[in-house]
Amino acid sequence: MSESADIKARVIDYLKDLQDTLTTKLAQLDGGADFVSDDWRKEKRGNVLGGEGRTRVLTDGKLFEKGGVNFSHVVGAAMPASATERKPQLAGRGFEAMGVSLVMHPHNPMVPTSHMNVRFFIAEQDQQEPLWWFGGGYDLTPYYGFKEDCKHWHQTAKNACDAFDPAYYSELKSWCDRYFYLPHRKEARGVGGLFFDDFHRKDIEHSFAFTQAVGSSYLDAYCPIVERRRNDAFTQAQRDFQLYRRGRYVEFNLVYDRGTLFGLQSGGRTESILMSMPPLAAWEYQHQSKPSSPEHTLTDYYLKPQDWLA
Amino acid sequence: MSESADIKARVIDYLKDLQDTLTTKLAQLDGGADFVSDDWRKEKRGNVLGGEGRTRVLTDGKLFEKGGVNFSHVVGAAMPASATERKPQLAGRGFEAMGVSLVMHPHNPMVPTSHMNVRFFIAEQDQQEPLWWFGGGYDLTPYYGFKEDCKHWHQTAKNACDAFDPAYYSELKSWCDRYFYLPHRKEARGVGGLFFDDFHRKDIEHSFAFTQAVGSSYLDAYCPIVERRRNDAFTQAQRDFQLYRRGRYVEFNLVYDRGTLFGLQSGGRTESILMSMPPLAAWEYQHQSKPSSPEHTLTDYYLKPQDWLA
Repeated sequence: MSESADIKARVIDYLKDLQDTLTTKLAQLDGGADFVSDDWRKEKRGNVLGGEGRTRVLTDGKLFEKGGVNFSHVVGAAMPASATERKPQLAGRGFEAMGVSLVMHPHNPMVPTSHMNVRFFIAEQDQQEPLWWFGGGYDLTPYYGFKEDCKHWHQTAKNACDAFDPAYYSELKSWCDRYFYLPHRKEARGVGGLFFDDFHRKDIEHSFAFTQAVGSSYLDAYCPIVERRRNDAFTQAQRDFQLYRRGRYVEFNLVYDRGTLFGLQSGGRTESILMSMPPLAAWEYQHQSKPSSPEHTLTDYYLKPQDWLA
Repeated sequence: MSESADIKARVIDYLKDLQDTLTTKLAQLDGGADFVSDDWRKEKRGNVLGGEGRTRVLTDGKLFEKGGVNFSHVVGAAMPASATERKPQLAGRGFEAMGVSLVMHPHNPMVPTSHMNVRFFIAEQDQQEPLWWFGGGYDLTPYYGFKEDCKHWHQTAKNACDAFDPAYYSELKSWCDRYFYLPHRKEARGVGGLFFDDFHRKDIEHSFAFTQAVGSSYLDAYCPIVERRRNDAFTQAQRDFQLYRRGRYVEFNLVYDRGTLFGLQSGGRTESILMSMPPLAAWEYQHQSKPSSPEHTLTDYYLKPQDWLA
């Protein structure tokens, strides 16, 4: 087995294990519904030589209104123009992309929505070193803000990073703040977390181990927050506010998210890509919240990038 | 008054009158709620020299769950790069864009959603003829299909066109089918209607009169369909299907609609641009409808472009 065949097999093993762990733990946490698994294969079409995936979706649980945890692995003959513009050295190379991505939408507006993704990209060519990088991260989108939740989320992210490099957390936290931002709303999508792309630091073992640390720390970051909030009472007005705020989630994913747009435009599997959409979302013209209300504090305080560990 | 100042003033008069007529008639049709009017002004910022608008939104009516009819008029110092790529002769020119756009979302899933837009664009430069064009059209998005509604909608559109040129209907109907299409769903947004852009035919009087005929025939196209369906009974399952289908409306507007994306990216007034969003929309993984059910017939028959007047 060549060196790059070996790393690909190891990444795929990790990703599939991660998907299993995530769906097992999140279904336990839900306590009502289980994930339904949908295995798919993509036949050769255009530049796509083939692909396979396991889409797992939980619907109408006790805790989660909808949640999805996807594994996918796509093999392409040549990079699309959009990617080679950014990285001309990729032109003409075949590539493989593999990843796990997750979005969980709870019923209770006191429990935040969360997103996690880890991915690996490799472009090989005869007689040359393969080009590769990792990407991923996780970010939290509360409807009602709680400082201790933000602190816990970011502390867990920082701990995962610090084991590798003391500079990573601050770099990837800022990257997350820049990436999950809606310019047309002048708002962050949530309270941030970690985001990284084109990650090729030190050697492939370091980069892979770091990516695993991020993926594997997600449950430690999210589950305690869920446990703390899941039994909080809420009113219909708070539920309505959650549906309204979920509209922003839709706006971000459909207008800005690179992965979503790349997937839709390159003929990816639409149902798997759009499992990130909330089960229900509302739009209201000129929504106003009362000054100093928790709804106002969300946008006025929580959705402004800041140092949660200060 | 110069010739181009005269035409601009006449188009603005027409658009404001059209907005008044539309909101008056649609509020009468609703019979429960009225439009709330929101006048706004945009200050000079970047390439935008100024702008003004009247956003009118109806919420929680008897018939309409949400509807918006916007007038806007924007003056810019220079065309954005995206536009001058398509039309290099626009580079360096100031421009004015003005239009009315409308989206109506009924409660009852038997009543279709409809969209209408008319707009005028003019780019002037000293010592040169101004560049100008009109654009617009209307399209219908049913949740449950009825052939007689499609026929009436398209016949009204054709009558409006035929008074100007017997070739217009067929050309603009096909353009509409191509424009309101979701490649990632392999589906049309609805049963079509008319769409035109860069419309500069014969002379400015002909083009303006044609655009008026389109704008002013919208009520004749939509109201009889609304009257025919508004008292139809519906089930919760049919309402759920409507919410699910409204997700497609969101996907089209945020992923493909040029006007929406241009507006959001160029610093337009977000609340006015996104008044087109449905009040409530749902996403469901791998939604399945029973063969031969009305839900299945929608995608299998109605959302496939065809000659409704055959």
